[in-house]
Amino acid sequence: MNSDLDLLCVNMLRFLSIDAVQNAESGHPGLPLDAAPMAYMLWARHLKHSPRNPEWFDRDRFILSAGHGSALLYSLLLASGYELPLEELKRFRRWGSLTPGHPERGRTPGIETTTGPLGQGFGNGVGMAVAEAHLAARYNHPGHEIINHFTFGIVSDGDLMEGVASEAASLAGHLKLGKLIYLYDCNRVSLAAGTDITFTEDVEKRFRAYGWHTRAVDDGNDLAALDRAIRAAKRERERPSLIVVKTHIGFGSPRQDSFKAHGEPLGAENVKLTKRNLGWPEEPDFFATEQALKHFRRRTARGTMEKRWNAALDAYAAAYPEEAAELRRAMKSELPEGWDRGLPEFPADPKGAATRAASGKVLNELAARIPSLAGGDADLAPSTNSSLKGMGDFEHPSRAGGDDQGSAGGGWSYAGRNIHFGVREHAMGAILNGMATHGGIIPFGATFLVFSDYMRPAIRLAALMEIRVIYIFTHDSIGIGQDGPTHQPVGHLASLRAVPGLVVIRPCDANETVFAWKKALEIRDRPVALILTRQKVPVLDRREFAPAEGLEKGAYVLAEASDEKPRLILIATGSEVPLAVSARAELEKRGISTRVVSMPSWELFEAQPPEYREYVLPSSVRARIAVEAASPLGWHRYAGTEGDVIAVDRFGASAPGDEVMRKYGFTVENILERALIIIRKVHSSQFTGHS
Amino acid sequence: MNSDLDLLCVNMLRFLSIDAVQNAESGHPGLPLDAAPMAYMLWARHLKHSPRNPEWFDRDRFILSAGHGSALLYSLLLASGYELPLEELKRFRRWGSLTPGHPERGRTPGIETTTGPLGQGFGNGVGMAVAEAHLAARYNHPGHEIINHFTFGIVSDGDLMEGVASEAASLAGHLKLGKLIYLYDCNRVSLAAGTDITFTEDVEKRFRAYGWHTRAVDDGNDLAALDRAIRAAKRERERPSLIVVKTHIGFGSPRQDSFKAHGEPLGAENVKLTKRNLGWPEEPDFFATEQALKHFRRRTARGTMEKRWNAALDAYAAAYPEEAAELRRAMKSELPEGWDRGLPEFPADPKGAATRAASGKVLNELAARIPSLAGGDADLAPSTNSSLKGMGDFEHPSRAGGDDQGSAGGGWSYAGRNIHFGVREHAMGAILNGMATHGGIIPFGATFLVFSDYMRPAIRLAALMEIRVIYIFTHDSIGIGQDGPTHQPVGHLASLRAVPGLVVIRPCDANETVFAWKKALEIRDRPVALILTRQKVPVLDRREFAPAEGLEKGAYVLAEASDEKPRLILIATGSEVPLAVSARAELEKRGISTRVVSMPSWELFEAQPPEYREYVLPSSVRARIAVEAASPLGWHRYAGTEGDVIAVDRFGASAPGDEVMRKYGFTVENILERALIIIRKVHSSQFTGHS
Repeated sequence: MNSDLDLLCVNMLRFLSIDAVQNAESGHPGLPLDAAPMAYMLWARHLKHSPRNPEWFDRDRFILSAGHGSALLYSLLLASGYELPLEELKRFRRWGSLTPGHPERGRTPGIETTTGPLGQGFGNGVGMAVAEAHLAARYNHPGHEIINHFTFGIVSDGDLMEGVASEAASLAGHLKLGKLIYLYDCNRVSLAAGTDITFTEDVEKRFRAYGWHTRAVDDGNDLAALDRAIRAAKRERERPSLIVVKTHIGFGSPRQDSFKAHGEPLGAENVKLTKRNLGWPEEPDFFATEQALKHFRRRTARGTMEKRWNAALDAYAAAYPEEAAELRRAMKSELPEGWDRGLPEFPADPKGAATRAASGKVLNELAARIPSLAGGDADLAPSTNSSLKGMGDFEHPSRAGGDDQGSAGGGWSYAGRNIHFGVREHAMGAILNGMATHGGIIPFGATFLVFSDYMRPAIRLAALMEIRVIYIFTHDSIGIGQDGPTHQPVGHLASLRAVPGLVVIRPCDANETVFAWKKALEIRDRPVALILTRQKVPVLDRREFAPAEGLEKGAYVLAEASDEKPRLILIATGSEVPLAVSARAELEKRGISTRVVSMPSWELFEAQPPEYREYVLPSSVRARIAVEAASPLGWHRYAGTEGDVIAVDRFGASAPGDEVMRKYGFTVENILERALIIIRKVHSSQFTGHS
Repeated sequence: MNSDLDLLCVNMLRFLSIDAVQNAESGHPGLPLDAAPMAYMLWARHLKHSPRNPEWFDRDRFILSAGHGSALLYSLLLASGYELPLEELKRFRRWGSLTPGHPERGRTPGIETTTGPLGQGFGNGVGMAVAEAHLAARYNHPGHEIINHFTFGIVSDGDLMEGVASEAASLAGHLKLGKLIYLYDCNRVSLAAGTDITFTEDVEKRFRAYGWHTRAVDDGNDLAALDRAIRAAKRERERPSLIVVKTHIGFGSPRQDSFKAHGEPLGAENVKLTKRNLGWPEEPDFFATEQALKHFRRRTARGTMEKRWNAALDAYAAAYPEEAAELRRAMKSELPEGWDRGLPEFPADPKGAATRAASGKVLNELAARIPSLAGGDADLAPSTNSSLKGMGDFEHPSRAGGDDQGSAGGGWSYAGRNIHFGVREHAMGAILNGMATHGGIIPFGATFLVFSDYMRPAIRLAALMEIRVIYIFTHDSIGIGQDGPTHQPVGHLASLRAVPGLVVIRPCDANETVFAWKKALEIRDRPVALILTRQKVPVLDRREFAPAEGLEKGAYVLAEASDEKPRLILIATGSEVPLAVSARAELEKRGISTRVVSMPSWELFEAQPPEYREYVLPSSVRARIAVEAASPLGWHRYAGTEGDVIAVDRFGASAPGDEVMRKYGFTVENILERALIIIRKVHSSQFTGHS
């Protein structure tokens, strides 16, 4: 039986949402009307949080994976007493409001993660539960349960159709993440249609096959049943829980149970009818009763939960001062003093090393210094060199003693810092986002560059959220050779550079790789993608060439021309830099003074002052060649109208890597030939004044 | 009991593969050793095919989704008598060979689809089964089962971890694709590790939840059990089948059951030991016995299956001449005579229409003329305007009478031409590829441009395979407004342009949209992405401006400057073209002669002769501004070193679309301001000779 007060609260959520959508003349009324009861039950009775301090570390996390229902989330935040005034609900979907069309982390207090693209929030929640389990295993002690919270979410039919959610669900079941609890708003209607026409699988059975605990609530308006199901899910600690809640999209409205309730305002008349149906006053709009607000806030009004935790943290700090200091640093996302002192330096070596191998060494060195650095790979650790050796495998303890093929060593437990994502790149991306937004961990994830495509929607959201996630993308060009075009990235560098905010770094040798990692860790508010070779590349002799720390500026003069004013500039990244260096030697022999610019990161370079950029690439030197074994897209910006770009404008080929590189024109001879053409062209145009 | 002859054939497949890998010093021995028995049983006993005519339309399709086991597939083709000489197996993974590292459609006779990136082949197979079911429903008559074949595949642990396979499996179960049969090579080991550390779900149970028929074969070497399972799967016509075959990776080798058997050659010594273990002669390498070859080819040697089908097709043609003519055209991928005559023309209209709306009209017009055009959407048909009205919903007939929300009208059956993919963009991409490679259908798929990221790995493979798939990507910029940055594409145009071979077309108005569709259908050997607006854009008055068929050249002079030599060129695409037109009017008023170039497709423009490109964008006119509401990446190529690019270099914002466009600088005023700066700069540099 629902009390009148409960119903008042539920309907307040419904109509704050509906009024917001109607007022904006844009948005999604369907979900708020049907999911308000479960949201209310969760927030008012179960959620551990601190509306006055949304950053409280041990709060329960809540994710609205079906982000199109944002109006419901804003109503919940308002009702709970977060800093989200009613005024902002009236500015739903307006320029600069705190209430954008889909929930955006960083914009609105209390939003844990940016959702909207379906399936992502589901994966984020798995990442948050991973982070909680990991930090709890590392820092808790008997009697000191400093890290101990749930991750809750509301997920939709659409979320559960997305592959990223399937991948994340399979992994969450394997990992036995018992403190992950999702309420599935099963309204059987998506944007375009009833799910009858596309989605008739047995969802509960599927989740049980993944190793989940499932419960069903047959009437989404039955608060007592919702309460029982949530309680049961909280008691279940060995399996994540999916509570299947049968609901009616657009509940109470004339469009109930129709896809037309999903994504457009009901219309003023229908809003009135809905209010009348559900016994809500038609006037005023945006009606928030004091009684309901008070009821909503009664558990959190005094901030008792957080105060108790603060005291517990103090007690913990007294008992375990070093661990507490480490945890506090991790919670603030700070790096330990001196973490970047004395990083490896690689001696010059013409035979060289793959930058993936150098990366593996630096990563292990850094992981030893930075306790919060943790991550893993999508089933490619031996190839991506991304194992943290001896630092344990992130697994449920009960799995220890199983087959330990591929183990990083150091034991199987939630304290392990190596996360095995399986062949699930997309889930890896979404889980990394969840780990980063949870906090306490600096997550990294590794796969081949070509498979970055699989996780692209998650990378984009990391950039949009401005969070610290590090991607290790190896096997970075046609240079990988025999695996062939399916595995040889061509457009991937360009497509990553097209993501606003993402920093892409492609170091040219082992020493640039060191600084690439340093930079990746220094950047707190943007994701960073490290692009690394499979094949060996020479380690440049830094006594002869400029120091590798030039990488931090994105581009630098690696080898100066013999003349004050170079006749030619060769710009290159990654494995093509040594090639440019060799070409320069030949050009200089022929009396053509040539500068080589190593340009590992466009984004870092663009952040430099104009003077520095002009110094590295003087506008007076128009004879330029950019060399990169990837799509030419975007290089004309640096090569200039009269310059040339030696790049890859078709798919790769299966043959030994050296041979593929040669056939595709990555040779000293080709650079020489093209250089002579360019120099002639620029020279003649200077005389005719023509370009 | 396996006969000696069977075992001879199985081992021949194993060691042809192993020798190929060893000889190449690169490749994957693990799968061929364990999966050879199931592959043999399928190919020698069940597969309906015609090795001398790999294009025979009614052949069973076979997909090795785990493409890294390519050596096994090449061995099968060789053993079956396809045009793949032993010499080519010796050139495995060499430049120009027919045996690249992963199977490539178009390169090797008998390869149905390009695989390697995991999960894709699984999705392709669903597409092939969709195509078979659809063509059978449309063209078969009682006594004339012209289209009637199975789609078989071998899938791996890795495939089943990928989200794209989960999505495709859920849809295949919903659609009851009973003629789809996958053998799951369950060796419990992937590249990096035993699956114990990542993948412990109950796969059979999961697939049953999707509505699949499952069977288990406990010993992957038991040919009789494999045969029984395949027979049972063929009998089952209401559900797709997954046969879980327990195998041992690297069977018979010293690395059996270890992830080390997965992806590197065994080494010469281990190859010898493996041959000894399995009773195979150590010498010679690449040993193909006549006895085994003969046994392999006994069912197909005389081409009886194909001959019988040709006769049946003749009988069908006699009974149903019109349908037969239509089917023959579809099989040859030809368009009907006159399909492009009298396409819609839209009258000038300053209020205009969204290009998605124009697209919907053209698409319906074309679908009425082109019977093989079929496709669907990822749960967004009302928004992407991609329904073929009254042309039926592609559904299993037993589902008819269900909830018909979102139905296109025209009945529910496999003959329906509207495919509802659900919220499964990635599976949609992979299924479209399978439909295209199957043949007989020109498939299209629709979603929002921002979600093209979800299906990117499949788009890339369409481009690599050079197949005809049409993507309808709507909601193409920040102009969508209130849904906000999660739904506003920024880097997506650039990232699609970075895919080699993909043709991207962003028409500026309703009439360019007509020609965009025309072009998309004319291009037979490349996928095409149509990029369309959600918001209304004016329909340009083509009496005043150049005809819209200029689109076919990728870029054209839409509005000529008043002067012979323009002082400024404005280059724009899509919704920014009308803006450029308005800016031009203002500039001309101020005496600045300005040309407007509409540039809907870079790829089509680059395919034009140099003279045409020089005519459209004369190199002497250096004052240029490119205007596109997307990432600037790549535009400097056309704007030139001295030009400017008005673009979007950060994420979007949630507010009404007009307002977002204004705030981001897409206004006549901003173009004017930037134009004056550019003109001044170019002018002064012309005098100083400086750039």
